[in-house]
Amino acid sequence: MNETRLAALLSDVAGGELSVDAALDRLRTLPFETLEGVATLDHHRPLRTGFPEVIYCEGKTVEQVAVIAERLAAHSSRLLGTRATEAQFAAARGRVSDLQWHGQARCLWLDREPEAARQEGVVLVCAGTSDLPALEESALTLRLMGHEPCKITDVGVSGLHRLFPCIPTLQKANVIVVVAGMEGALASVVGGLTNAPVIAVPTSVGYGASFGGVAALLAMLNSCASGVAVVNIDNGFGAGHLAALINSRIAKNREN
Amino acid sequence: MNETRLAALLSDVAGGELSVDAALDRLRTLPFETLEGVATLDHHRPLRTGFPEVIYCEGKTVEQVAVIAERLAAHSSRLLGTRATEAQFAAARGRVSDLQWHGQARCLWLDREPEAARQEGVVLVCAGTSDLPALEESALTLRLMGHEPCKITDVGVSGLHRLFPCIPTLQKANVIVVVAGMEGALASVVGGLTNAPVIAVPTSVGYGASFGGVAALLAMLNSCASGVAVVNIDNGFGAGHLAALINSRIAKNREN
Amino acid sequence: MNETRLAALLSDVAGGELSVDAALDRLRTLPFETLEGVATLDHHRPLRTGFPEVIYCEGKTVEQVAVIAERLAAHSSRLLGTRATEAQFAAARGRVSDLQWHGQARCLWLDREPEAARQEGVVLVCAGTSDLPALEESALTLRLMGHEPCKITDVGVSGLHRLFPCIPTLQKANVIVVVAGMEGALASVVGGLTNAPVIAVPTSVGYGASFGGVAALLAMLNSCASGVAVVNIDNGFGAGHLAALINSRIAKNREN
Amino acid sequence: MNETRLAALLSDVAGGELSVDAALDRLRTLPFETLEGVATLDHHRPLRTGFPEVIYCEGKTVEQVAVIAERLAAHSSRLLGTRATEAQFAAARGRVSDLQWHGQARCLWLDREPEAARQEGVVLVCAGTSDLPALEESALTLRLMGHEPCKITDVGVSGLHRLFPCIPTLQKANVIVVVAGMEGALASVVGGLTNAPVIAVPTSVGYGASFGGVAALLAMLNSCASGVAVVNIDNGFGAGHLAALINSRIAKNREN
Amino acid sequence: MNETRLAALLSDVAGGELSVDAALDRLRTLPFETLEGVATLDHHRPLRTGFPEVIYCEGKTVEQVAVIAERLAAHSSRLLGTRATEAQFAAARGRVSDLQWHGQARCLWLDREPEAARQEGVVLVCAGTSDLPALEESALTLRLMGHEPCKITDVGVSGLHRLFPCIPTLQKANVIVVVAGMEGALASVVGGLTNAPVIAVPTSVGYGASFGGVAALLAMLNSCASGVAVVNIDNGFGAGHLAALINSRIAKNREN
Amino acid sequence: MNETRLAALLSDVAGGELSVDAALDRLRTLPFETLEGVATLDHHRPLRTGFPEVIYCEGKTVEQVAVIAERLAAHSSRLLGTRATEAQFAAARGRVSDLQWHGQARCLWLDREPEAARQEGVVLVCAGTSDLPALEESALTLRLMGHEPCKITDVGVSGLHRLFPCIPTLQKANVIVVVAGMEGALASVVGGLTNAPVIAVPTSVGYGASFGGVAALLAMLNSCASGVAVVNIDNGFGAGHLAALINSRIAKNREN
Amino acid sequence: MNETRLAALLSDVAGGELSVDAALDRLRTLPFETLEGVATLDHHRPLRTGFPEVIYCEGKTVEQVAVIAERLAAHSSRLLGTRATEAQFAAARGRVSDLQWHGQARCLWLDREPEAARQEGVVLVCAGTSDLPALEESALTLRLMGHEPCKITDVGVSGLHRLFPCIPTLQKANVIVVVAGMEGALASVVGGLTNAPVIAVPTSVGYGASFGGVAALLAMLNSCASGVAVVNIDNGFGAGHLAALINSRIAKNREN
Amino acid sequence: MNETRLAALLSDVAGGELSVDAALDRLRTLPFETLEGVATLDHHRPLRTGFPEVIYCEGKTVEQVAVIAERLAAHSSRLLGTRATEAQFAAARGRVSDLQWHGQARCLWLDREPEAARQEGVVLVCAGTSDLPALEESALTLRLMGHEPCKITDVGVSGLHRLFPCIPTLQKANVIVVVAGMEGALASVVGGLTNAPVIAVPTSVGYGASFGGVAALLAMLNSCASGVAVVNIDNGFGAGHLAALINSRIAKNREN
Repeated sequence: MNETRLAALLSDVAGGELSVDAALDRLRTLPFETLEGVATLDHHRPLRTGFPEVIYCEGKTVEQVAVIAERLAAHSSRLLGTRATEAQFAAARGRVSDLQWHGQARCLWLDREPEAARQEGVVLVCAGTSDLPALEESALTLRLMGHEPCKITDVGVSGLHRLFPCIPTLQKANVIVVVAGMEGALASVVGGLTNAPVIAVPTSVGYGASFGGVAALLAMLNSCASGVAVVNIDNGFGAGHLAALINSRIAKNREN
Repeated sequence: MNETRLAALLSDVAGGELSVDAALDRLRTLPFETLEGVATLDHHRPLRTGFPEVIYCEGKTVEQVAVIAERLAAHSSRLLGTRATEAQFAAARGRVSDLQWHGQARCLWLDREPEAARQEGVVLVCAGTSDLPALEESALTLRLMGHEPCKITDVGVSGLHRLFPCIPTLQKANVIVVVAGMEGALASVVGGLTNAPVIAVPTSVGYGASFGGVAALLAMLNSCASGVAVVNIDNGFGAGHLAALINSRIAKNREN
Repeated sequence: MNETRLAALLSDVAGGELSVDAALDRLRTLPFETLEGVATLDHHRPLRTGFPEVIYCEGKTVEQVAVIAERLAAHSSRLLGTRATEAQFAAARGRVSDLQWHGQARCLWLDREPEAARQEGVVLVCAGTSDLPALEESALTLRLMGHEPCKITDVGVSGLHRLFPCIPTLQKANVIVVVAGMEGALASVVGGLTNAPVIAVPTSVGYGASFGGVAALLAMLNSCASGVAVVNIDNGFGAGHLAALINSRIAKNREN
Repeated sequence: MNETRLAALLSDVAGGELSVDAALDRLRTLPFETLEGVATLDHHRPLRTGFPEVIYCEGKTVEQVAVIAERLAAHSSRLLGTRATEAQFAAARGRVSDLQWHGQARCLWLDREPEAARQEGVVLVCAGTSDLPALEESALTLRLMGHEPCKITDVGVSGLHRLFPCIPTLQKANVIVVVAGMEGALASVVGGLTNAPVIAVPTSVGYGASFGGVAALLAMLNSCASGVAVVNIDNGFGAGHLAALINSRIAKNREN
Repeated sequence: MNETRLAALLSDVAGGELSVDAALDRLRTLPFETLEGVATLDHHRPLRTGFPEVIYCEGKTVEQVAVIAERLAAHSSRLLGTRATEAQFAAARGRVSDLQWHGQARCLWLDREPEAARQEGVVLVCAGTSDLPALEESALTLRLMGHEPCKITDVGVSGLHRLFPCIPTLQKANVIVVVAGMEGALASVVGGLTNAPVIAVPTSVGYGASFGGVAALLAMLNSCASGVAVVNIDNGFGAGHLAALINSRIAKNREN
Repeated sequence: MNETRLAALLSDVAGGELSVDAALDRLRTLPFETLEGVATLDHHRPLRTGFPEVIYCEGKTVEQVAVIAERLAAHSSRLLGTRATEAQFAAARGRVSDLQWHGQARCLWLDREPEAARQEGVVLVCAGTSDLPALEESALTLRLMGHEPCKITDVGVSGLHRLFPCIPTLQKANVIVVVAGMEGALASVVGGLTNAPVIAVPTSVGYGASFGGVAALLAMLNSCASGVAVVNIDNGFGAGHLAALINSRIAKNREN
Repeated sequence: MNETRLAALLSDVAGGELSVDAALDRLRTLPFETLEGVATLDHHRPLRTGFPEVIYCEGKTVEQVAVIAERLAAHSSRLLGTRATEAQFAAARGRVSDLQWHGQARCLWLDREPEAARQEGVVLVCAGTSDLPALEESALTLRLMGHEPCKITDVGVSGLHRLFPCIPTLQKANVIVVVAGMEGALASVVGGLTNAPVIAVPTSVGYGASFGGVAALLAMLNSCASGVAVVNIDNGFGAGHLAALINSRIAKNREN
Repeated sequence: MNETRLAALLSDVAGGELSVDAALDRLRTLPFETLEGVATLDHHRPLRTGFPEVIYCEGKTVEQVAVIAERLAAHSSRLLGTRATEAQFAAARGRVSDLQWHGQARCLWLDREPEAARQEGVVLVCAGTSDLPALEESALTLRLMGHEPCKITDVGVSGLHRLFPCIPTLQKANVIVVVAGMEGALASVVGGLTNAPVIAVPTSVGYGASFGGVAALLAMLNSCASGVAVVNIDNGFGAGHLAALINSRIAKNREN
């Protein structure tokens, strides 16, 4: 504890065990140590919140991913690598033998924690089969952060009737992640049917003028339904992470 | 009739009333006259189809609009001017005293045809009050072309329940025009609920990242519902015109 | 029939054969059943309209496509898979032995219906040889939906004379699909020459600043010819489907 | 209650007070009534959640805004009109005499509820004075929904030291709304300093290449900090609404 | 003459009237003087080619335009100011009493040259009345440069028949300027009908997704007709200038 | 000759050898025959102007290219295929044994014409080695159209001194093609140094924010030098073709 | 001095004049005080470097600007307000009577410092008269920061000869700011002629496809000349500020 | 030396060894020779400033790179090739046996200069591991130009505490290069913490809506911190070069 360390230091000065100059020397760097304390807290945060360390693998060499994974696995019981290739995974498993692979989500992951009850309350919805990679990235993120999401798949707005049986599930959710490509209308429809906060994930699925997800992104940003916010294209991880933060806070209070 | 005129000319040659050279002279320009014949047919088409002459007023001076309106009103019992200003209308009415003004649609128009039964079968749907200008431009176009559209307004996807009572109306339509800004999701929802051809009109309604209608435009182009095609942003006229073309053909066959 | 079922249920209640509570239990889920009824109708619609089930293959694994194709082929005599790869087709044919492949359109398809007369009235026009894939996707869609399109190819606007002999064909059409890349001007030219509804398909064909079809898309959206609506870039399927919906309605009425 | 009404109807049938046909007649429209029931619930939701009716004033005439405001004020004790002009407000106050005006937020609003304790937990942060309109729109939305946001202003990243004294406030927040134009970096910095969910609002503030807020929007979507989601440019209302939804759920559980 | 001056300098050195050092001093700055010689030639070029000085008035104050016009009118018998406002013109005419104003082209201009035969050979074509400002800017530029353009107006591709009577005129042209907004297809159609070089001017005329002329610009850049090059949106001056350069060269050779 | 045929037809009618009805029948289709006559002239134009048939190979299959090349080579002594792959070339040479390949320009070509003097007057300039493919495509086009371009390479504006020795060459040119990527400034610099018409070809050469040639394209469209027009990104063929059209007209007149 | 304060605090603890708890209390807030110390230094920096406080006036109300100006003028002898309106200036001068106005630069400013020698070494170059506002904003910024820039105006690349006499001035510069709109080529040309660091300011001057400065921005980012970096469109202030930072460091070292 | 050559020439004339005419002949081309002298100076500049010749390898063939490298290595002791492939390097090393390869920076380079002290003062900072390629390209450029940059890596703004220990290093820098992808916020944060000129390099690192570096580019251009200028996406070379120019000038003055 910083405050403890500060009190000890001051006591040492008060007791004459530490000279003013020596104390000054140590305090001179304190602001940064203190900030490192913030950093340390920050560093501890993942463990507290059940949030694993995350490696963004795109643009890293196979070797870089392997080294980072090994280093993280030495200090953390959980880790997640997004946008990974199978080659990156293979190299990393060479160093972390119990590393796992999720092909559809393109993630490498590790979970050495004892199995425990996960928090419910997050619902993941996606419009079509082609949106599954982002949905699965969200789901894996949530599970590593201690949540058990409920998945509803293939309920695109061109066949609304498929969505209706799910309305009760949606209305009971603490937070909903909607994953959709093409015109991304599902976010507005779900946002209009429920009272829950909605995190929308545009995907890069679609014909020409979807422009790699821009059409869905813009649609979601312009949703006429209130209560919708948007993350980056295909960013299932980001949506999952944010959903976990929100759900944790709701659940934590519920427990008290 | 061109063919009649050609027959007459040939008869004159056959009867010696017209020399070969004189006939040649007149025929030399015939291809263009013939094309003008196509043009004439084209020119007659509006009358046949009930389609009025249209003035695109934007970028024209007040004087230009007035002169064009006067000239058209001399040959046609109907006319339509889109994207007009009140000043353009005022100047034009100075020359065409029975010209009408539709403020919300920003159109000047004229209809001297005797009142007659209009064709039903076109349904116009819009998402919000702010989308009314484009919807009214469609409606006015349809009426001038001899159709009586059914209007459904303020049924945005953020409150789907407002749309459901309209499903039977939508399912009976020959063709549907969907007008929506923001995320434009209404086109997909309507497209998924019915079997009718859907013409989508994106509007420039929305917060910042609607980019003047681009968000809705892209959403509609990427609709996951089949049977949807799109016209230009705020182009209520274009959608109305196309809907009239389609509805006419369906109705015409129905009558036979 | 829902209404029949409702009447029976009410009779049972009236006759004491069903308790109020039991009736309530069954009615409680009725809205969704009713909506599922809509869904069922929706589900039956393809059979009624001759429209096959469609798999959008892009972004799906080879295995997913094969499984979906197998499932659909068990319930439907026709199916269509767009944006397919040969590998997806090969896997799917492993499960559906009579599945067909259309290389240029990149479609897998199945048609077990007895050969029957197809509806005429749809004309497909494309500007150049490079636009053929989208045109063929339209044609295949139309054929699976019971239409026999007439194809006019290689009539780009840089050589208008090639288009003129086709004017009579265009003018007799119920609906026209225009497929063009580069500057997409063919849609305006065709739209100006005929009275038929025009569905324009921009293609991703072109030099640098065609931006993957955006130039043609914008040109078509801004067509100075009335009666033109646009589908997504390279979306031959969408245009074919919409053309079929329109043509069916015209033809159906004609028959009556 | 729907179920109650259904039970009564069934009892009436069981008791012979209602014929099967009459019951059938009423049930025939039941699905929509039932959906209207969902709608009714939906309609009741604002009152339950303290959420006022919202008028998006942009693109509406002065008269339309006034009429809608009057109609809403007749049924609701609270209302909010965003993107309003002073002229729209003046016209609306002509019909709703206790209507209020918030110039900086460009909102008209009404709150006839007895003053009550508001929920704390939402922190609003903005980068500069020019971002205040969006922040105030968020604040007003939150207040009308029963929350008392804490505001931190003028803490742009070009002078991080101004932000540091606020870190404890940020770390205690249930949810944070970050409003920033120009490069929008504040969202990432705040997201990196806290564990709270962050809703980012890009604003249209900035020199040329901010492109009306696109620079900030893209920056926020690409935030390297996890736990950040984004709403539309200048959409303070949307962020405030979403923050209220999240905060309500956390607070509600806390109370239990 | 530079060469004369050089010869004189060298003679002076040869004759001992100028020391090597003094000559060196003068020669040290010669390259720039020589370049100024190029500049002087360049400066003389307008007079030789009949090309007037041009003031781009946009973004200049009324006073700046007036001063520049006055200065130019003192040295040049012709001048042209594009993108001018009436206020700029009024101020400039206060100093140059014979200055002229072309309202549709938004140009101020001066031509004190004795009337002389202008070169024929340039044809200007525009699609609609709204495109006239750019066409007139081209025409005025050409006239000031000594050419007499032939104008063909209102021949948009939605009514090709209007264009056909003009084909002989187009085919006799030395160079053609095509001015069109909306989808800009006229450039391709004209390019396909003739063998002449075509300079295309996209205009900012059009509904929403014309994006201020981008649609026409892209269409023209992607023209499937060979022999088409493009200038900036609404840049009638640029097209007129280039057409004049080309036409001059053709005519000059013709005369020899 | 059409006129001859018309005269004969009329004579036949006048002489009673052809009935009015039969003449009418033949004249009814005349417009298209006449237009086909235009077409025929158009078809003959390449031979007259020395312009070869062109195959745009991108998006065509190897087989399609080979078939088209074979067909063209049967009727034409010259042909050009742009954007070709080596595989397309190989297949085409299988059918046209004297077909040639230009690797840097990615063109296949054929020239069976007897060697003849080519017209001089076109200067091709490029900024860097990476711009050579587009420059060579221009050069090849020009040579096949009977021109012998002068090439100046590697004179980018970051070392203007390299350009200066070429000024006399530039100033003697009839027409100049400037090929440049990155910021495309060379077009403005050359345009400012000469009086010749300049055709600018933006190339897709450059770091990230060149956006595949958009930066150069915009720069060239916005050139502050008059007398510059632009073709599509990397469209060396288009620039070469246009340069040839202009140069032919200048040269033709010169000869007279 | 912070360190002094820390030493005093520690001495007080050592001497028993301050209890450990009281010291702890004060140190608990120290990190932020220390950061505020950084902030204080930061706050002092303007005075040290001669850099005035800057108000970005756009998006601020007249009243806000006046209040901020008054507050700053109470603590600072210099201030600068960019993107100001005359109304903002008038209101601010109501509170700060010696406030100055620079109309072309759209800046309000104050300089109460005694006149002193300014540092030379910064050269400002602009392409045309329309670029003067941004250039003057740079110049004013530099002057308020203690530099005396040399201005070279109206040397656009379409007349390179105007630039050549300035080469010696450019080559002696410590740092050069190049301001240009349209195609922005001046930055590359200047960058190629000198060895000095070049800061490029794109301006929003230009015809249609300059897109409000995007063309110049992209051109400058893609400059083939090394040693060029770019600031935001029209951001004369930013370029001036950066130039002052660089020039100060060069001059400071020179003095030692 | 040009001046020497000029003096010699003049002496020859003065001494009668060279006739005026012969001198005139040689001087006639002098402007270009003189410009070549400028060019020569320009050519010598790299040696003077320690700046190596640079080959932009992208878009060049393996053979072209090898030939250019060989030619440069014959005249220069240093060279740099950016955006190189390993194949290009291999071919070039076949001709220049001591050529080096930097895989992460994708550069080939040569440095035959004797090891000498490099100038300090440039600090390179990057946000994440994936930004290393651009940072290393900057570093290599700086080293070849005689500077020894200090590198700070992996200090993204989502964990500001990692950046704080580096503040003293940043504050002592003469010039700072900030390399960041995603939202690019690091440039603003660093710019706000220091007084040094900041050169920002956006990288193409990021999820979907980073659009290949556009998000970071726009963020950096819109930095609310003063003193930041931007180079092209991933253009580590450009930033390194500019930093070297600035650092040289500061250091050079320091030495005097």
